Amino acid sequence: MPSEFDIIRRYFTRPVKRALLGVGDDCALIAAEAGMVFAVSTDMLVEGRHFHVGADPDKLGHKALAVNLSDLAAMGAAPRYATLALALPEADEAWLGRFSQGLLRLADAFGVELIGGDTTRGPRNISITVMGTVPPELALRRDGARAGDELWLSGASGDAALALAHLDGRIRLAGAALAHCLARLHTPVPCVALGLALRGIATSAIDISDGVVADVGHIAERSGVAIELRYAALPRSRALQACADARLAAECLLAGGDDYELAFTASPDARPRVESLAAELGLTLTRIGSVGAGEPGLVSVYDASGAPMQIARKGFDHFGS
Amino acid sequence: MPSEFDIIRRYFTRPVKRALLGVGDDCALIAAEAGMVFAVSTDMLVEGRHFHVGADPDKLGHKALAVNLSDLAAMGAAPRYATLALALPEADEAWLGRFSQGLLRLADAFGVELIGGDTTRGPRNISITVMGTVPPELALRRDGARAGDELWLSGASGDAALALAHLDGRIRLAGAALAHCLARLHTPVPCVALGLALRGIATSAIDISDGVVADVGHIAERSGVAIELRYAALPRSRALQACADARLAAECLLAGGDDYELAFTASPDARPRVESLAAELGLTLTRIGSVGAGEPGLVSVYDASGAPMQIARKGFDHFGS
Repeated sequence: MPSEFDIIRRYFTRPVKRALLGVGDDCALIAAEAGMVFAVSTDMLVEGRHFHVGADPDKLGHKALAVNLSDLAAMGAAPRYATLALALPEADEAWLGRFSQGLLRLADAFGVELIGGDTTRGPRNISITVMGTVPPELALRRDGARAGDELWLSGASGDAALALAHLDGRIRLAGAALAHCLARLHTPVPCVALGLALRGIATSAIDISDGVVADVGHIAERSGVAIELRYAALPRSRALQACADARLAAECLLAGGDDYELAFTASPDARPRVESLAAELGLTLTRIGSVGAGEPGLVSVYDASGAPMQIARKGFDHFGS
Repeated sequence: MPSEFDIIRRYFTRPVKRALLGVGDDCALIAAEAGMVFAVSTDMLVEGRHFHVGADPDKLGHKALAVNLSDLAAMGAAPRYATLALALPEADEAWLGRFSQGLLRLADAFGVELIGGDTTRGPRNISITVMGTVPPELALRRDGARAGDELWLSGASGDAALALAHLDGRIRLAGAALAHCLARLHTPVPCVALGLALRGIATSAIDISDGVVADVGHIAERSGVAIELRYAALPRSRALQACADARLAAECLLAGGDDYELAFTASPDARPRVESLAAELGLTLTRIGSVGAGEPGLVSVYDASGAPMQIARKGFDHFGS
């Protein structure tokens, strides 16, 4: 059986590129870049909660890093470094090989160096901390939305939740729709290029990990504004368009979570720039609502007739029911 | 029951000091300091492996941060920031109150800001990433030991392991010896001031978390040198001096782990500076061996008669037997 040190050496150690010192000392050493500060974020994924027992380790390695890179994207930061703390029930080399492959493939795609970490025996748990760089004055914070701004969403929400609904037996997907939704759930692609491009354009941003309403609510709270969402304006994938259960569709679109798209606000004056960005990056960017001067923190959703909608779930809360 | 967001707000959110942006956004933002780079380290503590079920949450909060600060100390870095990822079986407010109190008390003592993290439901698991600052040319790396250097140890090793031996029923401690050893096990104090003072003096350093022989072995490997340890020179606490079981005593002293003292190498010319440091900081610093030009990576231990000793355990390996 490989030792803790063998595992680190075999699966997680690579030559440093940008870092001054990588895996193998008490600490890694990283230098700041001129004019930049570090954006730092940490996420923890637990077996049985964030991924199921027996989840494909390659996809899990991808997703564990992707959800962290999504936080950097939402800050407008360029990904640079990551540390990995990993608890495993046993030193399963086949699992480690595939997990590290999935993680490092995504790391390479986004220029991220794995600079350190910890491996230990325990119930399967993956905790990653990422560090990226951003000019401090251009960071996309949650607290910059202003009354009059427009609210935008990249891509479409709800597909990861629709995949979960399929896996839970609440709906039956097949063919291309199933493949699309499962890919959205298991191998989300963080919106890094969009986050970088929104520097100087977006007044606030957040990634959609807990559901559109809940995450837009964080912008509303931190910015001290009210936000109105137009349900009919929300972009829908083909899979969601085909969903016959209107209640489930609304739940997925508004409160699904695990989407890793960006919601952001921008001045109406910036609309042409946002629209040309969408074309440049080959992304769908959709105006889904507006920022108002109502009750700070309030998010209201209106249906196509202009009537307010009741939202079933406010988003995913790891200690909620 | 408090939500994930309530927990973060109630127990882990404080006004920022040095950080540009703390808890509550997609990322925290931290700026580098002139002439400094960031030292980064991550540790994961798992219930049933690193701490027992029912462990005092205040002490656990202390220890979880302390083991990370010890890595910064071993690098000669000044502690600055930490992120916390926490999995808990349930949102136990009494536990959270005491855990955060223990963690934040130590954070305050060492000027560390908690800038972000994640809380989720799952088997109890604590993963902390710390960031400190150090001038890159003065960082205490593991790879700088040179033949002719002397090997030093701060404080004394073995007491945490002796406490574990007591808890496992292998030995019976009482009174001051028990209190001392339990404190060493549960509330270790990271050698931050020593790490800072050793900048420019030590040629290499490491913290003793896996046992003296194993950790000194990491210096030997990374520096490509052989290290000779004099068993009789190892400092011993009163509790270890009183230990009648010579085999257990040797095991604790040489392979005990969880000590969070610093082992470091320095040129013989630096001896007066090291000795005056000990006086200034009120620490015991003991020469316990020397660096030679033998087989790279080899650590040899000699008893008082000069005979080589067999080492029972090479240190703690989380995937070993």
